[in-house]
Amino acid sequence: MKREGKMGSCSACSSKSSCSSSTALGGSGNCGDAAARQDRLIAATAGQIRYKIFVMSGKGGVGKSSVTVNTAVALASRGYKVGILDVDIHGPSVPNLLNLKSAIEMDDGGRMLPAEYSSNLSVMSMDALLQDKDQAVLWRGPKKTAAIRQFLSDVKWGNLDFLLIDSPPGTGDEHMTILQAMPEALCVVVTTPQEIALADVRKTLNFLQYANANILGLVENMSGLVCPHCHKEIDLFKKGGGEDLATRCGINFLGAIPLDPASVVAADRGEPVVAMDCDTPARQGFLSLADKIAACAENSLEAISTSKG
Amino acid sequence: MKREGKMGSCSACSSKSSCSSSTALGGSGNCGDAAARQDRLIAATAGQIRYKIFVMSGKGGVGKSSVTVNTAVALASRGYKVGILDVDIHGPSVPNLLNLKSAIEMDDGGRMLPAEYSSNLSVMSMDALLQDKDQAVLWRGPKKTAAIRQFLSDVKWGNLDFLLIDSPPGTGDEHMTILQAMPEALCVVVTTPQEIALADVRKTLNFLQYANANILGLVENMSGLVCPHCHKEIDLFKKGGGEDLATRCGINFLGAIPLDPASVVAADRGEPVVAMDCDTPARQGFLSLADKIAACAENSLEAISTSKG
Repeated sequence: MKREGKMGSCSACSSKSSCSSSTALGGSGNCGDAAARQDRLIAATAGQIRYKIFVMSGKGGVGKSSVTVNTAVALASRGYKVGILDVDIHGPSVPNLLNLKSAIEMDDGGRMLPAEYSSNLSVMSMDALLQDKDQAVLWRGPKKTAAIRQFLSDVKWGNLDFLLIDSPPGTGDEHMTILQAMPEALCVVVTTPQEIALADVRKTLNFLQYANANILGLVENMSGLVCPHCHKEIDLFKKGGGEDLATRCGINFLGAIPLDPASVVAADRGEPVVAMDCDTPARQGFLSLADKIAACAENSLEAISTSKG
Repeated sequence: MKREGKMGSCSACSSKSSCSSSTALGGSGNCGDAAARQDRLIAATAGQIRYKIFVMSGKGGVGKSSVTVNTAVALASRGYKVGILDVDIHGPSVPNLLNLKSAIEMDDGGRMLPAEYSSNLSVMSMDALLQDKDQAVLWRGPKKTAAIRQFLSDVKWGNLDFLLIDSPPGTGDEHMTILQAMPEALCVVVTTPQEIALADVRKTLNFLQYANANILGLVENMSGLVCPHCHKEIDLFKKGGGEDLATRCGINFLGAIPLDPASVVAADRGEPVVAMDCDTPARQGFLSLADKIAACAENSLEAISTSKG
């Protein structure tokens, strides 16, 4: 098992002027031959994955990782082969949400092997780079770019129907790097309903349009809360703001997931609400969301190939 | 009024190897004379501010900006001269939370003038760099570093009792830059009570210890929710996890702020809950938090000067 040693084969780029590329999204750590070879590896990996779903949010704390994990578990329960790549270097939470002890295993050819959550759901998280899980990652932008490119090129997923990429909030180095390396990714933007979150989502949508990215649609998480005692609706983060925004922007509204105290407790135990025995509105919301994402992804790919044809 | 033109005086650093400094926190955009002059400007600005409070969080969406804004309004209501510097480039929300239309005004000497929220609370946000508020900032790390250093050096605050610096979640370029430029800053870490947030807070605390930063203490936000209909307690994000963590780590616990649907609605209107007429547990929580921060800041400064003396 190798850890930091493998990382940063491009870390020298952090101080090389040749790394400032001329694309809209900025430098990609392009160090000539090594970068071109890595680009080919990324393309080869991507070629084995039917749908690359890039899960983003403007604001943090809107439940992006929870949406990623539960959508992935739901898609896997529908029979699809699914992978999750967690590139949230500063706060990778996917392994905790799935109760996986992540470590990087290598095959004989030096490629990283994802951890198996189930027979058709595998997971690779940047969390695995940390020897001590309470340790913070003190990497500036160029080093993060190099690490993400390595995770895109060197993980042996095999054939997948869906790869869900969980990212940190915002529109920083991580997002530019992924969209530059995998421009065919379909972006799912997660928000909560209140205006302060929607303001950040509008920024994310503008970023994606500027980057010519494919926007699959918007998810409204933490959409309404029912009091577990009196069963009345509580207007905590409001409701419907995400759907309104999607309509105004002419993008797909993929679904609304209600807040659910039981799913917070389950998340802390590493149990996704979709995998729980009891049926809840949150579980139903995630199953519908996964079906909608699968349908929209198929339509989107058809639309892209039609426009190219 | 100048905007992007002034920014990025160090943006050339993004491709210069001389910028990789040898400090624990990495490069600071050190381009020789220009950087040294900027360091002197930052020191001069900092010299006029008694307490620099750096508000951080591990996870996004824990209400860091809400804590910053309400603490600042509460301190100002106690008679202190207060400033807020919002360096969350990708999601600057302070102007929205205070209903301020931010734009950068300059004095005759070319220094940026903060916006006045009240006679003793002034605000400068990176939001002011955006002509279109829905526009995303597509800056990689080195450019963010340069912009933050300029905001630290070139804003004319005058004499302040408190400057609260609101940062993005995590431990990225922004945080390293601020702690490097203002190592005397007192760090306030905001969390929510559930384990998935505390895991990220432990990373932040380790980062601060590694950086030899002054940790003022921990705030537990979204701590409990009372149903507005039946008035029973709802265990949404749990309660007490932040206080437990502070005790275990031997750091100050600064206070717990309950979740309050009324304050979410008020925030969307740009009205901080502390400034509202009606008294609520959240308002009381923020007033107590501000008093505790003021007391701890005074003790902390005394402790630092005693240890130096």
